[in-house]
Amino acid sequence: MVNRRASLDLTFQALADPTRRLMLAQLSRGPTSVSNLARPLAMSLPAVMQHLTVLEASGLVRSRKSGRVRTCSIEPQALGRAEQWLNRRRIEWEQQLEGLGQYLQTVKD
Amino acid sequence: MVNRRASLDLTFQALADPTRRLMLAQLSRGPTSVSNLARPLAMSLPAVMQHLTVLEASGLVRSRKSGRVRTCSIEPQALGRAEQWLNRRRIEWEQQLEGLGQYLQTVKD
Repeated sequence: MVNRRASLDLTFQALADPTRRLMLAQLSRGPTSVSNLARPLAMSLPAVMQHLTVLEASGLVRSRKSGRVRTCSIEPQALGRAEQWLNRRRIEWEQQLEGLGQYLQTVKD
Repeated sequence: MVNRRASLDLTFQALADPTRRLMLAQLSRGPTSVSNLARPLAMSLPAVMQHLTVLEASGLVRSRKSGRVRTCSIEPQALGRAEQWLNRRRIEWEQQLEGLGQYLQTVKD
């Protein structure tokens, strides 16, 4: 449970940056090299690598070096866990609203 | 667009803390007072108030004071924007996989 919490902390922390979200948006359309990932970003390669380190630590991205090229890909499980957490809150909130609606209907009847 | 990005930054930042996620989980089951919100948390009321400030700044929660009681409720729109962002990434990733599958099938045929 603690690990799960820590992992959600790191995932949401990684998502809290616009550059890292751009990188994830690019990677969700397919694996790509670090230099391709850096191309649309107005920053140095070391800065991109730092963001990549945060993304890898959070479990949202993994990378593999083959020769001189490092290829990055998205980890859908980590993305899914964050989405699921938000999804559960929405369902609870909707159920609560529904319960309230039913109660109001009972009072009205 | 910049505001939207800043808002997602704040939302994901607010979500990156286990206490704030517990508070959101409680609030998704219905509005409640700050003292009720603080009850299951092993921390002082000022510490809870600090977390509440972060949640309100992110747009995930709003609170209203009536007499001596401050009541908090969840803001489903902010929660929805974060969920939607993750949802889009998943859809893109699934489409990319599907495209790859079709390509492999074409090669095989």
